[in-house]
Amino acid sequence: MANPIITLTTDYGTNDHLVGTLKGVLLKINPELTIVDITHHVNPYDLLDGALTIGAAYAYFPPRTIHIVVVDPGVGTARRPLLVTAQNQYFVAPDNGVLSLVYEREQDNLAVRHATAEHYFLQPISKTFHGRDIFAPVAAWLSKGWQTSAMGEEIQDFQRFTLPRAKPIDDGLQGVVLRIDAFGNIMTNFRAEDLPESAKNGGGLNLKVATHTISKLVETFANGATDEPIAYMGSSGYLEIGINKANAARKLTIARGATVILPKS
Amino acid sequence: MANPIITLTTDYGTNDHLVGTLKGVLLKINPELTIVDITHHVNPYDLLDGALTIGAAYAYFPPRTIHIVVVDPGVGTARRPLLVTAQNQYFVAPDNGVLSLVYEREQDNLAVRHATAEHYFLQPISKTFHGRDIFAPVAAWLSKGWQTSAMGEEIQDFQRFTLPRAKPIDDGLQGVVLRIDAFGNIMTNFRAEDLPESAKNGGGLNLKVATHTISKLVETFANGATDEPIAYMGSSGYLEIGINKANAARKLTIARGATVILPKS
Amino acid sequence: MANPIITLTTDYGTNDHLVGTLKGVLLKINPELTIVDITHHVNPYDLLDGALTIGAAYAYFPPRTIHIVVVDPGVGTARRPLLVTAQNQYFVAPDNGVLSLVYEREQDNLAVRHATAEHYFLQPISKTFHGRDIFAPVAAWLSKGWQTSAMGEEIQDFQRFTLPRAKPIDDGLQGVVLRIDAFGNIMTNFRAEDLPESAKNGGGLNLKVATHTISKLVETFANGATDEPIAYMGSSGYLEIGINKANAARKLTIARGATVILPKS
Repeated sequence: MANPIITLTTDYGTNDHLVGTLKGVLLKINPELTIVDITHHVNPYDLLDGALTIGAAYAYFPPRTIHIVVVDPGVGTARRPLLVTAQNQYFVAPDNGVLSLVYEREQDNLAVRHATAEHYFLQPISKTFHGRDIFAPVAAWLSKGWQTSAMGEEIQDFQRFTLPRAKPIDDGLQGVVLRIDAFGNIMTNFRAEDLPESAKNGGGLNLKVATHTISKLVETFANGATDEPIAYMGSSGYLEIGINKANAARKLTIARGATVILPKS
Repeated sequence: MANPIITLTTDYGTNDHLVGTLKGVLLKINPELTIVDITHHVNPYDLLDGALTIGAAYAYFPPRTIHIVVVDPGVGTARRPLLVTAQNQYFVAPDNGVLSLVYEREQDNLAVRHATAEHYFLQPISKTFHGRDIFAPVAAWLSKGWQTSAMGEEIQDFQRFTLPRAKPIDDGLQGVVLRIDAFGNIMTNFRAEDLPESAKNGGGLNLKVATHTISKLVETFANGATDEPIAYMGSSGYLEIGINKANAARKLTIARGATVILPKS
Repeated sequence: MANPIITLTTDYGTNDHLVGTLKGVLLKINPELTIVDITHHVNPYDLLDGALTIGAAYAYFPPRTIHIVVVDPGVGTARRPLLVTAQNQYFVAPDNGVLSLVYEREQDNLAVRHATAEHYFLQPISKTFHGRDIFAPVAAWLSKGWQTSAMGEEIQDFQRFTLPRAKPIDDGLQGVVLRIDAFGNIMTNFRAEDLPESAKNGGGLNLKVATHTISKLVETFANGATDEPIAYMGSSGYLEIGINKANAARKLTIARGATVILPKS
């Protein structure tokens, strides 16, 4: 049997002891673990950014991977800790919607539990570091016994939000910038099926963001000329805007939340 | 038997090959290791920051964990490399005080050795990268044989410093900002026992830092209103100042070393 | 048998899901892996920086380590994916020269293959994330069967570049700044053998960079006085310029590519 895998997605940053301490708690309970950092640089308190991050990564992990997701502006309040079984994977996270993309994609095979088994928690439970005191212990004990039912009762009224969807307007679709990646690429919420027929058939498009129009739909960054903004289908399945070897968000002065218009032709 | 665990706490940053090279050395000696990064972003050359980081994390790790701590402004000089046994854990670090919090907390069960067994070191020993050439080999060989006495003689005159303590002043206590965390929370050196009786009993306090007065003592961040500075007992056991979903240090313009006053009432 | 080791050197950064996703792919194919991050902060698209990073680290890893190196401005174009056997280690990378230092040092024991075994790749193959879809699967399957010949045919016309070398000028050598490290130390392309005889015998030197002259050759940082620029042989074997406990590149306003002159005396 291979070692159980636990992944971490947090907004803790990597400048202090938080991540290390959480890993210590995991390994003290189950020293056989393989621990994988997805990222600790989710924008602080940003549930959408957290949801997009775990949503883009989880499906690539083996069955029975346990994902700890801690973006938790309500730490220490009444918001519930959750243990979620989705398809063949597990998620431990606060009940604030950060798992919304998981719920949406795995809705046919989903069990959401309120983790109430306090005898598994680290005592005394702090009010500000539930990653250490609640989420890590729940995940680590799960990796030893795989008994989800021992962690708490199933619930139905868990928090969830839906991603902003592209909406029809007079002459096309209106979308939004979901995130800017580390290279400065601009990820919109348009999917392949939103592209106008002309673009699908190898023609151009007429994508508008702020004062810019992007008319070239290419397969990859390197197809863009120097300083030329280009559009392409990104590896997460969303239409993105980039500039070959440059930071598009900075050059075009575009931030998350900006409106994007995709005309029919 | 689970794999031996080695943790890393350094000021190397993660922009170049240093951390990777050090891990290569560890795994070449003992490929069975589980290696855990606590952080590589200790403030460069900052012994207090290093001491606080390892001090906050080590106790959460399993017995027999080996902690490598490299904040080492004197690398290549006569300062000694140490192998420390503290309670049931091990520490490998330069003799410059970076383990001061460990010494203080584990003083009843402490053995500090000068690591002199050069046949374990990587040859030739560079003058600028003892993490690779001395600390990593000592830790990795220890993880194979667990013979601390083979590494060098016990010493008593190791370097240590004491954390700045809150000191009594006319109408209360004077403390200091020990560190700013990744969220911008401001960690003072006040402990729970330093709080005035009124605060312990659910009343407020009258904490002063720069031109600000913080009067609300809460359990967790989310209890603060927008833009309102609040005080709370942090997860490391120190009184902290934060702002709900915001960067308190930046908003209040407070840096490490700032004076904090905690009046008796 | 110890677990196989795979290292990662990329320019992905650590702000989003990319690195985590790639590790998921690795572990789904081979859950027994030990994965080591060398760095994910190679300067974006910077082949020289990538080549220097893997060049400084690989030799410290155990035999049979597999190194994935993804700095890949041509992702999705015709540039070939490679599997390289060099001495007793393996490298998976795009054919763009990022392995140039490995080729140079291991030229007597080198086999470079064009990885064409598409049945190992993740399908469908994206145009923008070959780390996930090609390089990770090739490395992970290699770690299970160790059959390099199954991955593709050996080629000879792979891309490579040579590091800029110090060149003789009238009264000495002209070199260049190869990189600035995380501490702000300035790494030149001078080697120990380039030092003038006087310097080798304990005398000073007369190193010139921009408007500065560095005359003190020391063993380690701590031998420098406050604010005094010093030269020393760095741990990667190149002459470096630093300032004790300070950021030399910032204080001297020196960037990569700057000219450095090393007079004969």
